[in-house]
Amino acid sequence: MSAVSDDLTTAARSSARVLAAAPAAARNAALAELAAAIELRAAEILDANARDVEGAQDQRAAIVDRLTLTGDRVRGMAAAVRAVAALPDPIGTVVADHRREDGLHIQKLRVPLGVVAVVYEARPNVTTDAVALTLKSANACILRGSQLAASSNAVLTEIARTAVEASGLPADSVSELGGDRDALRAFVARPNATDVVIPRGGEELKRFLLEHSRVPVLAAGGGNCHIYVDAAADAGMAEAIAINAKTHRPGVCNAAETLLVHRDRADLLDAIGAALERAGVELVEGEEGWSTEFLDMKMGVRLVDSLDQALDHIAHYGTGHSEAIVTADPEAARRFVTEVDAAAVYVNASTRFTDGAEFGKGAEIGISTNRLHARGPVGLEELTTTKYIVHGDGHIRT
Amino acid sequence: MSAVSDDLTTAARSSARVLAAAPAAARNAALAELAAAIELRAAEILDANARDVEGAQDQRAAIVDRLTLTGDRVRGMAAAVRAVAALPDPIGTVVADHRREDGLHIQKLRVPLGVVAVVYEARPNVTTDAVALTLKSANACILRGSQLAASSNAVLTEIARTAVEASGLPADSVSELGGDRDALRAFVARPNATDVVIPRGGEELKRFLLEHSRVPVLAAGGGNCHIYVDAAADAGMAEAIAINAKTHRPGVCNAAETLLVHRDRADLLDAIGAALERAGVELVEGEEGWSTEFLDMKMGVRLVDSLDQALDHIAHYGTGHSEAIVTADPEAARRFVTEVDAAAVYVNASTRFTDGAEFGKGAEIGISTNRLHARGPVGLEELTTTKYIVHGDGHIRT
Repeated sequence: MSAVSDDLTTAARSSARVLAAAPAAARNAALAELAAAIELRAAEILDANARDVEGAQDQRAAIVDRLTLTGDRVRGMAAAVRAVAALPDPIGTVVADHRREDGLHIQKLRVPLGVVAVVYEARPNVTTDAVALTLKSANACILRGSQLAASSNAVLTEIARTAVEASGLPADSVSELGGDRDALRAFVARPNATDVVIPRGGEELKRFLLEHSRVPVLAAGGGNCHIYVDAAADAGMAEAIAINAKTHRPGVCNAAETLLVHRDRADLLDAIGAALERAGVELVEGEEGWSTEFLDMKMGVRLVDSLDQALDHIAHYGTGHSEAIVTADPEAARRFVTEVDAAAVYVNASTRFTDGAEFGKGAEIGISTNRLHARGPVGLEELTTTKYIVHGDGHIRT
Repeated sequence: MSAVSDDLTTAARSSARVLAAAPAAARNAALAELAAAIELRAAEILDANARDVEGAQDQRAAIVDRLTLTGDRVRGMAAAVRAVAALPDPIGTVVADHRREDGLHIQKLRVPLGVVAVVYEARPNVTTDAVALTLKSANACILRGSQLAASSNAVLTEIARTAVEASGLPADSVSELGGDRDALRAFVARPNATDVVIPRGGEELKRFLLEHSRVPVLAAGGGNCHIYVDAAADAGMAEAIAINAKTHRPGVCNAAETLLVHRDRADLLDAIGAALERAGVELVEGEEGWSTEFLDMKMGVRLVDSLDQALDHIAHYGTGHSEAIVTADPEAARRFVTEVDAAAVYVNASTRFTDGAEFGKGAEIGISTNRLHARGPVGLEELTTTKYIVHGDGHIRT
């Protein structure tokens, strides 16, 4: 396996050199070609997918549902590729420009990261999403889907490679890492296997990569998110935000997991708690409720004595993802946004907005709670790095 | 040792929370206090340093020289702290601002990284440089100097802690990791020991950290840098740049290590080679010359058939630090800056400019060849991360 994965890396790096020099038009043409090919070869994709679904009948219904493609879902995949192609080009933007008195001209430009590995679960649409985001940002990608979706992914990867090549870019801009978990472990154990690895999937996959990868792992943080209802909160707003943050989509990382209420508003804990229970949420008090990322219709609750106690609670139990205060007090809001250490901090809004599309980035490949490189939604810009370009006229340092 | 280093981390993280909320004035006051204390307690610093120097008499002269403080050098340390204090505050800057049609206001602000470990060799001035840069950027620091400089560093760390505390900030904003190499290895083996570790020192130290650290390591890349003399190069400019890039300070990472000359200008290889030899540089042909980062008065040389061969050579042997082309041909320059993958790419200028101060950053703590987070000189801005602050008026996601 190691020889094979070395080859994958070499071929991807060589393609990445070509992509970095290719104009945006060539990358967009490849994505247009890919979208068209997805539609044209829909029957083939659905056939392959049917084989995967047949092999997955012993899996949980939710897994089978995410694995299953339909004609509508395939058209949705093509539409998603076109939507990414239509986004502004993230490459070549000048992010800093400094001309020295001696005339030396120093510019800092956005350039591709290089090679991006994306590791995901049994959702075939992630294959084409990942190709779209990495190619648009001029990165080569190495895809590693679930073995449950092996047939679907094989066809989709082949379609992507053909589309890329038809547009005059190297087929190895897109490649697939096969094999079992041991193969994945061996792959990411090499510090230079890729420039970054991005998990798209559940907590177990993220933990696996954090434990075994020597390649930097991006967007692997969990979300133990809080709604803090301050002494100066509007009752109706607090209830609406708590209900939305918990129940709108409880299984995702920006869903709220614990409700903190200032002791002066203990009445609100009763009212919001009753509303949550009517919505089907089970309230959990104490350590278990506070330390668990339920990703389910359960929510920790706590009365706190003060804003300071809320801040301490969040510093202790939070995972640095998304945190919200509901308050009409500007000073409490100022302290909360300054002192809470998280990717996104909200005043009078639901934590559910932490999302690439909601933040105006067009699309995302995940949400980072890392402090280095990218924090928050990982969109096209976060799939780039920078390069200094310096123009002189014989300048030497003296 | 592990209990002790756990305690260091906990105390540093708790101080980092306070620093993140402290105004720039408080951090600048702490640096002013530190600069004054360095001057006031110069005799004590010099006494401690004399003990270190006495214990280092079996070391190489260059090491003893870097270890040795004088009255002038101590005054220089205080001046360097004041210079950092005078730089613009990197914290709180709004780097993105997006107001949605529904009124939700999303801002991305610069905030401190958190806790920064700095690991360095027997240069006591790095202690106060590191304190200045990390405190200015509102980070707590954990310092790890060389045991050769133990007495100097103990006094300097105590002075820094006292100065910080006198300014109303937590003393544990600055702390020192003691013990031997095993203690350092155990410390960085914990993924959350600090948010980042920055080596300031030689290649062996960098390799040690890259091998053993599970904390992200910043600025640990070497510099196998090239000067490519293109077919369209000006002869005098090519010679001046090659001499400067190799001999101005041969022991640093932005010094050039290999000279590539286009075959059409073989005469220039002779002329520049002769000039380099007159300047005391030994020329080394073949694989050894191309693959070695000499950090010395030696330089690899190669005639290349074309710009493409130069690009391939740099892609193969380069370390992604600083690369230069000398040419009067705009198309060759354009291809070189687009296709060379490095932190800094130069047209008609010496690679020696890759430096925080030269790039207008005021100061640097190192140079990164990483692709993630920071690439090039690591100044105050690169010691920050970002946080999204979102203000709503009861906004929920539907």
